[in-house]
Amino acid sequence: MSGRLYGIGVGPGDPELMTLKAVRVLSEAPVVAYPAPDKGESSARMIAAAHITAGRIEIAIRVPMRPGPEPASVYDDAADKIARHLAAGRDVAVLCEGDPLFYGSFIYLHDRLGDRFPTTVVPGVSSLTACTAATGRPLVRRDATLAVLPATLPDAALEAGLAATDSTAILKVGRHLPRLKALLARLGLVDAATYVAHATRADERIVPLAELGAEEAPYFSMILVAKERA
Amino acid sequence: MSGRLYGIGVGPGDPELMTLKAVRVLSEAPVVAYPAPDKGESSARMIAAAHITAGRIEIAIRVPMRPGPEPASVYDDAADKIARHLAAGRDVAVLCEGDPLFYGSFIYLHDRLGDRFPTTVVPGVSSLTACTAATGRPLVRRDATLAVLPATLPDAALEAGLAATDSTAILKVGRHLPRLKALLARLGLVDAATYVAHATRADERIVPLAELGAEEAPYFSMILVAKERA
Repeated sequence: MSGRLYGIGVGPGDPELMTLKAVRVLSEAPVVAYPAPDKGESSARMIAAAHITAGRIEIAIRVPMRPGPEPASVYDDAADKIARHLAAGRDVAVLCEGDPLFYGSFIYLHDRLGDRFPTTVVPGVSSLTACTAATGRPLVRRDATLAVLPATLPDAALEAGLAATDSTAILKVGRHLPRLKALLARLGLVDAATYVAHATRADERIVPLAELGAEEAPYFSMILVAKERA
Repeated sequence: MSGRLYGIGVGPGDPELMTLKAVRVLSEAPVVAYPAPDKGESSARMIAAAHITAGRIEIAIRVPMRPGPEPASVYDDAADKIARHLAAGRDVAVLCEGDPLFYGSFIYLHDRLGDRFPTTVVPGVSSLTACTAATGRPLVRRDATLAVLPATLPDAALEAGLAATDSTAILKVGRHLPRLKALLARLGLVDAATYVAHATRADERIVPLAELGAEEAPYFSMILVAKERA
C-alpha cells in the first residue's frame, strides 16, 4: 500500500498560526519535504521547526530565487524523490508557506503526484487573511467583492481587477512597488491602500501606502486596497 | 487598565483547523463571545468547544437567521456587554467561523469596539482555502487572478467579476444556486465549476456543478470556478 501525500499549509510566518491538524500530520509523517532557497534555510521549515522531530527523512527542494517561471526540473526531481517514498508506503508531508493551493508551491508537486497517490491538502492561514488581520482593517463584508491580483501583471490587468471589485489585494509586490503606487495614485486609491510586508513575522511592517517612501519591497509583501473606508 | 478584545478565527468547521494561537488565546480569556442562532447552538462555539473550560463567562450573540442586512441592534447590545467586561479589565475572545475580517461577523463588533479598546485579530483558515483544499484542485497559481463574489449580487456584477479574473469563488450560494447554474452555463463555465458545501465538516459535500441536480444549497456553500483546467 502506498503512502499518502500531504500538502500542509504552515501559515504566514508566526509558528502559532499553524493549525492543530498541520502539527499532528507533521508529527506523524516519516518524511518531510519543503521548498528552500539555493543556499540557506527554508522559511517553511523554520515555521514548522518545533514539530519536526529528530530522525525524520527530510527533502529540501532547492528552488532558485529568480523571477520567471518555476523551474520544472527542480519539481520533477523532487516529485521523483517523493514518489519513491510514497511507493514504499511512507507518508510524505510537504510544507508550504500560507495555504498549499492558494498561490502555493505545493501546486507544482500536486500537478505531478496528485493523480498517482492518495493526497490530502491541509489548508492553512493564507497571507491574505494574515495581512488583513495585521492591518486591523476589515477587507470584505456582506455583499462586497474582492480581487486578488499578483503584482507581476501589467497595469491594464491590475486596473481591470481593481475596477471590477470593491476591495483588492495585490500580492508579491517586490520590485513592482513604484509602478503600483503610480497606478493607485492615478486611480485615486492611495488613501484606501495599506502596505504590509512579512505579516506575523518578527520583521512585519505595516504602512499606509500614502506614507511609504521609495524603497525596495520584499517578495512577500502585499498592498490591500479596502475601498469601503476610502 | 482595560482588557483586550480578540477576534478569533476558528476556521471552517473541523476543530483541528483551529490555529495554536486561537487555542491559546481562547484558553486564557475569561470571557468568550460568539454568534448564535435565535435558538440552538452556535456553530463557532461547537468548533471551539474543547477549548472553552468551565467557569468562563459566555456571551451568546443571538443573530436572527434571515436574509437582509445584519440587525444593528443585536450588535449594539453585544458591543455594550463586551465593552463592560473590557472596561473592567477582562479580555474578551470573540469567536468567528472562518476568518474574522474576511466576511466575518466579527467585523460588526470591530466597527463598534476596535477604536475604543486594544484589539487583536487572530486570522483563521478561511472557507475559501478550506473549500479549495476539499476539492483537491489548485485555485490560483503564479500570475493567475482571483475574484471572490457573494452570490447575493445580481448577475451583471457576478459576470463582471468572472470576466475580469482567471478563477472565481462564489460565496454564500444558498437559494441562489439555480440562478448561478444558469449564469455559469451561459458563460460556458459549468465544467470548470465545483460545488462545495460545509467543507471540512461531517456533512461536507463536493460535487462537480455539471452533476448537481436541482436542490437547496445551504448558506455555507461555495462554487469554485477554476478556469485554469477548464
